[in-house]
Amino acid sequence: MSHLYEPLTLDLDYCRQRQQRLLAVMERLDIQRAVLFQPEHVQYFTGFRPGGLLNAAVSLDADGHCLLVAPNNAPEHAAVDEVVTFEAQWHCTLRQDQREAIAAILRTAWSGRSAASRVGVEFANTGRHLDPLFADIAIVDLEPELWDLRRAKDPDELAMIRRAVACTEAMYARAREVIEPGVTEIEVYNQLHAAAVEVAGEPLTGFGNDFQCNSPGGPPRNRAAEAGELFVLDLGPGYRGYYADNCRSMRVGATINDEQQHAWQAIVDVLQMVEETVRPGLSAQKLFHRAQEMLDEYRTGAFFHHLGHGIGLFPHEGPHLNPHWEDTFAVGDVFTAEPGLYGPELRAGIRLEENYVVTETGVERLTGYPLEL
Amino acid sequence: MSHLYEPLTLDLDYCRQRQQRLLAVMERLDIQRAVLFQPEHVQYFTGFRPGGLLNAAVSLDADGHCLLVAPNNAPEHAAVDEVVTFEAQWHCTLRQDQREAIAAILRTAWSGRSAASRVGVEFANTGRHLDPLFADIAIVDLEPELWDLRRAKDPDELAMIRRAVACTEAMYARAREVIEPGVTEIEVYNQLHAAAVEVAGEPLTGFGNDFQCNSPGGPPRNRAAEAGELFVLDLGPGYRGYYADNCRSMRVGATINDEQQHAWQAIVDVLQMVEETVRPGLSAQKLFHRAQEMLDEYRTGAFFHHLGHGIGLFPHEGPHLNPHWEDTFAVGDVFTAEPGLYGPELRAGIRLEENYVVTETGVERLTGYPLEL
Repeated sequence: MSHLYEPLTLDLDYCRQRQQRLLAVMERLDIQRAVLFQPEHVQYFTGFRPGGLLNAAVSLDADGHCLLVAPNNAPEHAAVDEVVTFEAQWHCTLRQDQREAIAAILRTAWSGRSAASRVGVEFANTGRHLDPLFADIAIVDLEPELWDLRRAKDPDELAMIRRAVACTEAMYARAREVIEPGVTEIEVYNQLHAAAVEVAGEPLTGFGNDFQCNSPGGPPRNRAAEAGELFVLDLGPGYRGYYADNCRSMRVGATINDEQQHAWQAIVDVLQMVEETVRPGLSAQKLFHRAQEMLDEYRTGAFFHHLGHGIGLFPHEGPHLNPHWEDTFAVGDVFTAEPGLYGPELRAGIRLEENYVVTETGVERLTGYPLEL
Repeated sequence: MSHLYEPLTLDLDYCRQRQQRLLAVMERLDIQRAVLFQPEHVQYFTGFRPGGLLNAAVSLDADGHCLLVAPNNAPEHAAVDEVVTFEAQWHCTLRQDQREAIAAILRTAWSGRSAASRVGVEFANTGRHLDPLFADIAIVDLEPELWDLRRAKDPDELAMIRRAVACTEAMYARAREVIEPGVTEIEVYNQLHAAAVEVAGEPLTGFGNDFQCNSPGGPPRNRAAEAGELFVLDLGPGYRGYYADNCRSMRVGATINDEQQHAWQAIVDVLQMVEETVRPGLSAQKLFHRAQEMLDEYRTGAFFHHLGHGIGLFPHEGPHLNPHWEDTFAVGDVFTAEPGLYGPELRAGIRLEENYVVTETGVERLTGYPLEL
């Protein structure tokens, strides 16, 4: 099977808009420079995605000058004003000191520009190798601001997520073909992987979540499915760094029992409630509690996880549809809703999960595969 | 197809031996405590492998006390004296502040033990979130020592690598079945992925390297293979963190040309030279140059990459068979040798790669799949 899709990249104009938003944050925090090493952030702000084991950095100055330190070769597609490359490999072998090499380049590049007294960084990605860069400079953790910026997806990001969603739709279609009594979870996993790669047209950048049968979730096992059980296929493929995350539950064999039908309807009702209720300004925590109440009517304790979460360059972003966070829906949020019910009578549970983008007036659903068991 | 293998884990006695080796390093460096966050090191020293997006830490004191900070639940299988857990997820949502949660636990746990004035860390993994842990404490970068310790593989590690090698053998066998004119690289990739997962019995922890045809290497494309071309299948599956890395080149269609046959023989001769030459104490750089001379006889410039490298918990470890490093082979090293020749007359190249472990008297080959095109 050949894939029907052209490869996607982030749009350079949108990358520049994202840089502008970061510059506004920097001005507010009185930061004259930001330097980011996390590959997701390099990609987000420049459009260039460093390969898995190659390091890169982006440095953005208050005057708008954007410098990319790129491994090996300058990328053709990047929203930057300056690129400096370093040798991430010597004779094809990965160097173990890529960060130090980048730091040396940054130090030289910065010496030709206005000095910064306060620099924004990702605390988690600012290892001690980088200490020499920050002598006599105050560093400020930008991670909370970056998570916040990343919530509202631009159209180029949405296109990437839609491609990942298209992967999941091909996976469900394949699952319908191959699920029958006797099939192992490993066989289903391999089939679904192949279906997703065919749509992506290239290896995926993530391939996670749940592939078990007769279980609420977990990685695929070498276990054969039995008639009457349900597969919970919670699929999180990543396309060039952007994740989808949605779920269907599929019957093994021809029949479903009354409890399964009853639980399925309760879950579908929650999804409908979500679609009718979410709009900018709504409390995601309140939405969680409303769903919990509805699902408790099936049986208290049968729903025991979050209602959903944002998705993007990380599988779990804001907004959190979860009692432990106090997030509010905002325009541009891309989130999942994943009500579920579990119990032995359901062999062993049903979860249905849709992906949405928050619009000015409500939500647009990104997922379209039928919900039926 | 069902897999024939039992799941493997690291052996707890060997984990304790690895802790003893780290304690010897700490004594030599006058370090009273080591604290490591890198998942590979948590696994290496405790046997517990944290899942992809879950954080963990191991803290080893000079008196031998080993503390594991584990996400969510205490693992059943871990070579530690004490386990403290933290909530890495709330209601199934990943926390974005796992490192801070771990730091808070470490601070409490350390307060009940002898103070350390010098602590060994991984500089790259010691982000600024952890600064409060190290007030008035000198930190020392253990990364070079850890890379060095990791070179000599213990039998439990070798078993993991052998499982990853078994995955590659199943992949080559599948490749022989499916490679024919017209097959796309994506189709071959999907087939090989499935074959490897069947042997692993679970999702792989890495699935990299080269799947192109008529090219020296690269990720699979949606390109159909043509008769007379060669597939360069450089396979790097990871089994529970441990990588194999070996390569076969396979013809498309029934025939190979004279240049292909000639180049193949030159490459096989290099592998034979490697097997006959490597022993503890040999310079890996000298071995590289000897191979370069042999391959230059085919045509100068037709071999342009490293001769190989160590493998283990990272795809490229020491020893480096590479002019840019000055490593010496030592007992326990597990390394690849991957001579190759490239050119349009070869459509577009041949690389053959074997994996070896260095013994007292020479090498033992870990790979057994036939080298023929």
